[in-house]
Amino acid sequence: MTVLMSPDELEAALRAVGAARYHNRHPFHQLLHGGKLDKRQVQAWALNRYCYQAAIPIKDATLIARTDDSELRRIWRQRLVDHDGTQPGEGGIVRWLALAEGLGLDRDMVISERRALPATRFAVRAYVDFVRDRSLLEAVASSLTEMFSPTIISERVSGMLANYDFITRETLAYFNARLDQAPRDADFALDYVKRHARTPEQQQAAIAALTFKCDVLWAQLDALHHAYVSPGLIPPGAFGHDGIWS
Amino acid sequence: MTVLMSPDELEAALRAVGAARYHNRHPFHQLLHGGKLDKRQVQAWALNRYCYQAAIPIKDATLIARTDDSELRRIWRQRLVDHDGTQPGEGGIVRWLALAEGLGLDRDMVISERRALPATRFAVRAYVDFVRDRSLLEAVASSLTEMFSPTIISERVSGMLANYDFITRETLAYFNARLDQAPRDADFALDYVKRHARTPEQQQAAIAALTFKCDVLWAQLDALHHAYVSPGLIPPGAFGHDGIWS
Repeated sequence: MTVLMSPDELEAALRAVGAARYHNRHPFHQLLHGGKLDKRQVQAWALNRYCYQAAIPIKDATLIARTDDSELRRIWRQRLVDHDGTQPGEGGIVRWLALAEGLGLDRDMVISERRALPATRFAVRAYVDFVRDRSLLEAVASSLTEMFSPTIISERVSGMLANYDFITRETLAYFNARLDQAPRDADFALDYVKRHARTPEQQQAAIAALTFKCDVLWAQLDALHHAYVSPGLIPPGAFGHDGIWS
Repeated sequence: MTVLMSPDELEAALRAVGAARYHNRHPFHQLLHGGKLDKRQVQAWALNRYCYQAAIPIKDATLIARTDDSELRRIWRQRLVDHDGTQPGEGGIVRWLALAEGLGLDRDMVISERRALPATRFAVRAYVDFVRDRSLLEAVASSLTEMFSPTIISERVSGMLANYDFITRETLAYFNARLDQAPRDADFALDYVKRHARTPEQQQAAIAALTFKCDVLWAQLDALHHAYVSPGLIPPGAFGHDGIWS
């Protein structure tokens, strides 16, 4: 029997999903932040994560396209601005490419996504599809992993700067911007979910949507860990397969 | 510069994809067939693979729905019959469930897919989407992994019967049926691709479609290997997480 929670109880339930399942708990992140990876492993992370970054504005436009609520569309539009910028050379995707180039990766190879792990592409696609196919409430709720991102970002930036001589503050500029953007986005989305999840079923759907999104992030790190850490089984065609690290 | 191949050269190129990328080369399959897995690991394989089996008739109906070629629809329809049967209790999905139950798994848990790995679900979904969104030629070509399946099936059946005392010939009935069905399906699809891939671009698209499908199968075994073999990191919520093997 599912009961109706108060908005604050719902928030607590959503936060509990993050505490149990957010990818800051994944061993790969601990290795990344703790300086335990070599440059190729960090490169693999950056070029796979690019696939996720590149899909985010598509995901956000998909959400905007689904609602006739002008205010929701207007507020959500800021996410497009954040990722695509207001002119060429700006925005989160460009900053991610700067990170990848700072790591010595070829920009066009990264953009082509052809050396990324298939599992990365499948997970990213599942996220975009989810936002297109599920209820608007679930689509919004799936963004709530951003509630948990300030912690992971600050761990990541300090850990990576301290531990890798091939990482500079400049290459990590992407994350500085996200430290302001993510909490603002998460506050809005959390408030939206708390106001619009008015039945037990809707509340459970919102929790399930956040769980799904945690799975999307976790699966990406599973794939990286499997291919590049342990047991180190790089799938055919992916970055590093047959010893080709480009 | 891509050149036009003869139909037989195209077939050779397709077979080369399988030789390099078909999942019989994956370490998890070698462990499975070689009797190196314990019952829980084989259970994990069966319940994850169920997600793939359950999606196959959806994939096939998606393909049928896309073509106004009555002959193609009629021939492809046999795949629906094979998987869904002609009456309740028949067909490949029921035989797969018998395998899962023969391994001691709860049928409803398997059907619910809620203990499957997220990466499995993402890969399976990517396959169905591919068949819906790409050209009909690519959709047909993505089925060509069946060219390579008779070998893996006979290895699997003999290896599993010889090595696992919890496996009987009865539980493996699914594979007996596939030994006849897969070559028939593959012959038709290969002939279709050889006749319809008439430009270099179409031929390359067919090769890429088969490569994609190999990635879909490979990613499923990567996820199983990662979660249940090495390093044995079971994602939150999946079969065996927190020591719950049901």
